[in-house]
Amino acid sequence: MKFKISKKDKDCSARLGIITTDHGKINTPAFMPVGTLGAVKTISPKELITLNTEIVLGNTYHLYLRPGTEIIYNAGGLHKFISWPKPILTDSGGFQVFSLSKLNKISDEGVEFQSHLDGSKHMFTPEFSMKIQRFLGSDIIMAFDHCPPGDSDFSVVLDAVNRTSSWMKRCSEFLKENEEHYDYNQNVFPIIQGAVNSELRYKSINELLPYAKCGIAIGGLAVGEEKNAMMDTIEYCSNLLPKEQPRYLMGVGKPSDLVMAVRRGVDMFDCVLPTRNGRNGQVFTKEKILNIRNKKYENDHTEIDSYSTHEWGRQFSKAYLRHLFKINEILGLRIATTLNLSFYLDLMSTMRIKIQDGTFHSWSKSWLSKYKLLDNSK
Amino acid sequence: MKFKISKKDKDCSARLGIITTDHGKINTPAFMPVGTLGAVKTISPKELITLNTEIVLGNTYHLYLRPGTEIIYNAGGLHKFISWPKPILTDSGGFQVFSLSKLNKISDEGVEFQSHLDGSKHMFTPEFSMKIQRFLGSDIIMAFDHCPPGDSDFSVVLDAVNRTSSWMKRCSEFLKENEEHYDYNQNVFPIIQGAVNSELRYKSINELLPYAKCGIAIGGLAVGEEKNAMMDTIEYCSNLLPKEQPRYLMGVGKPSDLVMAVRRGVDMFDCVLPTRNGRNGQVFTKEKILNIRNKKYENDHTEIDSYSTHEWGRQFSKAYLRHLFKINEILGLRIATTLNLSFYLDLMSTMRIKIQDGTFHSWSKSWLSKYKLLDNSK
Repeated sequence: MKFKISKKDKDCSARLGIITTDHGKINTPAFMPVGTLGAVKTISPKELITLNTEIVLGNTYHLYLRPGTEIIYNAGGLHKFISWPKPILTDSGGFQVFSLSKLNKISDEGVEFQSHLDGSKHMFTPEFSMKIQRFLGSDIIMAFDHCPPGDSDFSVVLDAVNRTSSWMKRCSEFLKENEEHYDYNQNVFPIIQGAVNSELRYKSINELLPYAKCGIAIGGLAVGEEKNAMMDTIEYCSNLLPKEQPRYLMGVGKPSDLVMAVRRGVDMFDCVLPTRNGRNGQVFTKEKILNIRNKKYENDHTEIDSYSTHEWGRQFSKAYLRHLFKINEILGLRIATTLNLSFYLDLMSTMRIKIQDGTFHSWSKSWLSKYKLLDNSK
Repeated sequence: MKFKISKKDKDCSARLGIITTDHGKINTPAFMPVGTLGAVKTISPKELITLNTEIVLGNTYHLYLRPGTEIIYNAGGLHKFISWPKPILTDSGGFQVFSLSKLNKISDEGVEFQSHLDGSKHMFTPEFSMKIQRFLGSDIIMAFDHCPPGDSDFSVVLDAVNRTSSWMKRCSEFLKENEEHYDYNQNVFPIIQGAVNSELRYKSINELLPYAKCGIAIGGLAVGEEKNAMMDTIEYCSNLLPKEQPRYLMGVGKPSDLVMAVRRGVDMFDCVLPTRNGRNGQVFTKEKILNIRNKKYENDHTEIDSYSTHEWGRQFSKAYLRHLFKINEILGLRIATTLNLSFYLDLMSTMRIKIQDGTFHSWSKSWLSKYKLLDNSK
């Protein structure tokens, strides 16, 4: 895996780059649609490509439970199983075992948990997460980390930082000692912890840097902390991270979060917001956020989004989309999800163009002043 | 609306034709995907066109309840509301008020019923059904008929035949006396009743023929009667119907039913089977019917249907489709629905080619001997 930066903004930390993996290139800043269980909900692989998706995210915890690692290995890896020819990043399961499952025991060894599906007992260790991700065959493997809630005490966050560092070492050793299963390279990203505490972030970065060979992730944010503290932490981390590696901000966020984080030097994002909120009837358009179930759209026969680059924004009316949501029709979930992903991926494309043009900083200020209001309007 | 027959099979009643409406041509024998509420469930208009759909069916009862006639009229008619540029046929609501709603009273005037959604009270008369269909703006309007259950007594079926005839007269008068709302023609098809009784079918045909100007439908079948009696009734009706008008067999059916009915001179079909069964995990393939939730497909990484003309049949594996169904992922419902519609529409296309080639009769016999077994295998 390679990362080449072709342009840096002169007034902020935004940068334009290309990550090259054995499954193709990813233009950065990049947004990764979330395909937790081997599908970006409602969307086909070809549609993802039409939307300019260059990488999708899968999840180790979910795929381990369903359909199970062995089935995916038998298919020839996750790319083949889901018919996705481009890069895949898999999250390690760390975040999910802490947030989704019923925890039995966290120890330095790993995490014992009960499945959120059937209560069955499992144990994830750093080695086991690496083992699964090797079988999944993702291009980017995430290290197994300990992500505490946003309101945790200093001592809890310190423990998480220490554990994450020692687990990183074990992840690295496992990957060194065990061969890949497929004929392409997999690359591991460490995940920085430390909540919004700069002392702990400093410690985490220093301890993880030796393991950052081709990329590094900022974890432990968007877990309940204040927005300003989140942005300050991103900026703090970004300044300490190697300039020549992509920086991945995990699980963030709203459109304005993406723009604010790109200003602070972030290169990669993932978030369920465009897909999950789409299925709940929230549609991001160039003009405003529509809550399409609202009665005011009942007889609104105007286009959903006249400025959308996706034909559905102009082909279908607000009244029709509202009708589809009112009758629980799947086509409605598809339209909202697709238009939201189109909005997100277009926003990334716009940011890349603005960095290339040398106008990103001023563009982002004016965009944020307009769009931040919308973000809070829902 | 015009109907031109270009070829007739010399050994059976199959015929090849083209219906021309103001929204375009329909090659017959034709299958109409069912878009009850203004959407063929899970499928976009462009996808329908890619599948070679030339006409879709909407439903007066359902669309009257949701979103309501006025909203569709404000959109400029059903074609514009749902973004479907090709022909639309609307069922009259007759079948639904008898089968879906809680009936309060059937009289010669019409039918009082309670909505299956909220119990609200409504009254459908022949005039009101025509009025709604005029607002919907379908290319083909179905007459408001009385369709009794398949196990009804002679006297009940006789009543239904008489009522259907008198309602047809009132439908026709309403359509004569009230102008169309849009700048294209709408055409009405009478619906023959009479269950599987040839005396009553004869009576119904004779009484409705004066109203059949450009097409006629065989209703009251596939409502619980024996398959042989159904086929005999189709054959009996078909022989009595005008040769120069398309014959529409309502609500039928399995793939083998379509082939058997084309042999008996039917030109148009609709059925929820490919879409509804698809959403339940039943996938029609060229080789067999798959119940994709079955555990035997868990590790079956072969293509869903190697012979499918749709890329998804070859792109996705049985194991992946099963996984999508097991996790209740919408993409799975889309794949099964799409492949089933592809199967149905390809079957119609094959029949048209075989009639054109003059080989339909022998082809249909060999196809039926193979596929009828599959139909019963589920």
